[in-house]
Amino acid sequence: MSDQPTNTALGPLDGLRVVETTSFVAGPLAGMTLAQLGAEVIRLDPASGPADAGRWPLDHDGRSLFWAGLNKGVRSVALDFRSPEGQELAAALITAPGENAGLFVDNTIGRDFLSYDSLSARRPDLVHVHIQGHPDGRPAMDYAVNPLYGVPMLTRQVDSDRPVNHVLPAWDIATGLLAVTGLLTGLHKRRSDGSGSRIDLALADVAAAHVAHLGWLAEAAERGHDRPRLGNHMFGAFGVDFGCADGRRVIAVAITGQQWRDLVRLTGTQAVFDAIAESLGADLSVEGQRFEHRAIIEAVLAPWFAKRTSAEVLAAAEGTRVMVGEFRSPKEVVDAFRRGEESAILTEIDQAGSPMLTAASPLRWDDVYAEPRPAPAFASDTEWALADVLGLSGAEIGRLAEAGVIREH
Amino acid sequence: MSDQPTNTALGPLDGLRVVETTSFVAGPLAGMTLAQLGAEVIRLDPASGPADAGRWPLDHDGRSLFWAGLNKGVRSVALDFRSPEGQELAAALITAPGENAGLFVDNTIGRDFLSYDSLSARRPDLVHVHIQGHPDGRPAMDYAVNPLYGVPMLTRQVDSDRPVNHVLPAWDIATGLLAVTGLLTGLHKRRSDGSGSRIDLALADVAAAHVAHLGWLAEAAERGHDRPRLGNHMFGAFGVDFGCADGRRVIAVAITGQQWRDLVRLTGTQAVFDAIAESLGADLSVEGQRFEHRAIIEAVLAPWFAKRTSAEVLAAAEGTRVMVGEFRSPKEVVDAFRRGEESAILTEIDQAGSPMLTAASPLRWDDVYAEPRPAPAFASDTEWALADVLGLSGAEIGRLAEAGVIREH
Repeated sequence: MSDQPTNTALGPLDGLRVVETTSFVAGPLAGMTLAQLGAEVIRLDPASGPADAGRWPLDHDGRSLFWAGLNKGVRSVALDFRSPEGQELAAALITAPGENAGLFVDNTIGRDFLSYDSLSARRPDLVHVHIQGHPDGRPAMDYAVNPLYGVPMLTRQVDSDRPVNHVLPAWDIATGLLAVTGLLTGLHKRRSDGSGSRIDLALADVAAAHVAHLGWLAEAAERGHDRPRLGNHMFGAFGVDFGCADGRRVIAVAITGQQWRDLVRLTGTQAVFDAIAESLGADLSVEGQRFEHRAIIEAVLAPWFAKRTSAEVLAAAEGTRVMVGEFRSPKEVVDAFRRGEESAILTEIDQAGSPMLTAASPLRWDDVYAEPRPAPAFASDTEWALADVLGLSGAEIGRLAEAGVIREH
Repeated sequence: MSDQPTNTALGPLDGLRVVETTSFVAGPLAGMTLAQLGAEVIRLDPASGPADAGRWPLDHDGRSLFWAGLNKGVRSVALDFRSPEGQELAAALITAPGENAGLFVDNTIGRDFLSYDSLSARRPDLVHVHIQGHPDGRPAMDYAVNPLYGVPMLTRQVDSDRPVNHVLPAWDIATGLLAVTGLLTGLHKRRSDGSGSRIDLALADVAAAHVAHLGWLAEAAERGHDRPRLGNHMFGAFGVDFGCADGRRVIAVAITGQQWRDLVRLTGTQAVFDAIAESLGADLSVEGQRFEHRAIIEAVLAPWFAKRTSAEVLAAAEGTRVMVGEFRSPKEVVDAFRRGEESAILTEIDQAGSPMLTAASPLRWDDVYAEPRPAPAFASDTEWALADVLGLSGAEIGRLAEAGVIREH
């Protein structure tokens, strides 16, 4: 049985039980997000080990920091998915009774025993969120989906034709969070009318939808051509990065009128911009005109930044509406954390005997961050799940372990 | 009163009423996500007009495609937030009775009458999600937060020291979707124990948390230094973009062993990689070793792509596990949509008399996309809300309009 501490501080989803069979980013993020809100989340993994157990980044002992980061606070149950008995145990755990159970998230392909049709035959009020690559069932991954919907083409630098892929798996993150929305929506519906829900959610659709929601596709449809390449310039308002005297870079953004007025005041450039506005016949108080005249605005502001260190820039902007952001590497974030300068959302936990820098849920109840719980050791909750959830006897569990149908820690 | 069609096809959140006072991306996305699932979402806007009404991209008539895209299916109520009567009406709408009402999302700063303390005094079981910039209340925006947590530093090209900012407001999107999670979680908690919830959610925390969840901060803490710059190479596995014979680019990704074996088979490079593995003492069946040897893998694969058009590459990969993605611009996505080649999630709706290319919710119930509803005209639901939700008489509504406390369409 697991040594993992149970959720002592009650979270808002305390009492909910969710089963998941997922890999990569979106599915595990969905499970972890629910676990960090207090749900009891049971991962079902193949007896051969989780698919992501070796995914980079790794720690010095070769353990996956990726897996540990994305599985915080969940329980791990290992079953032989190839054997009929293992499949029966998986289905029994997913469809176990309880008004706050019968909730399932998966991203598997081709496992009939985990399909909605097969599971809902056992529990008609099942809420099942099935994460897909493409909506027709073809597999996909963030890094291959992102190019399809235009983001790397818009991200490319002005002086290069090569698109720039995001390192952030943004669509995976959005898909994981939408899976949580789907699950909680299905639960709400079930509490309202007793019905179950078959919910499908495709990574490629998440990318297409959000690019469309932002107006980018409507824009291209309207104009009949794409936006110009912008480098680090923001679209539709003023925002770009500047070099500082110490070689560091900061970004300065003026979207609202207040931000623009404060930026002009801070940099002492009012007279210059008045003259420019006059000479160009421009009204720089209009957001879109700041975008159109971004090159000259950048050139006028640059000397103010170049004369100051990044620390001086940040100090000068404090207390104004000027929106500046320092470019930091992950290592610099870690250093700031060690100096006690970071948000309390970042914290170091004990992950299987080693300290691991990680994060709580960004959702604060009563202004408190819930302390994150570590990821489980693989298979550490198999015995607990079979005994406590399914009510199997110790002898029966022993037989299943011996037969290789289950794996215990 | 609004001409906007009510939600005829019942969504899974049908019957829920949410009030929101938000601007920029995260808050509106939260409201729209709930509306696309069937909730009745009421936007409260200042009588002077919504802050985002002029945000780019704009259509040919100067109307914001951004605003229209992010406010689909919500209702618009306009109140004078500066007048005590306008503030009273706002609070009354937010705290109106009903077991499926009393749900509020905002990202306002310094409006005491919209604070949890003030609103929960009127309705103790209020569920209030308050979106912030930084957790201490300072404002922030995606474009200034993203640099803080390392993403643009990891995104920069190998041959440039300049960080690359994302054009995608990924943290805004994640924040909006987490706001939905917070609201539905608070609703679940209220249905379970009758309690209200004060929920805070900071954009900067969302960035910090997800970068940490992915293991990036733990990695820098473990190693004491940052990852190398990778350009378009994926971290920890093999994935990079290739030029094709027609000048187009595709990305090829081999994360899993199956994807790698199929990529090698497809490109006929087995003998070369066997010899390379032998000569380097490498085991290319291991994901991390494919990352370490990414440069030689890229060089060996490049000629296969260079000899084929992107269409030939995609056709050859079909039916295999090879994960390839074509780089398309937004205009090319629109063209594919016009040819009927896109997922049914993309659709053209009538937005105030003009066709607008936009998207349904990616969450499909019973494999069906719910048809998206257009964004409202500003202030089009003021009269409806005051009459139907608050029960005010026509005479009273007329007096409020005359006094400038409310604005009608």
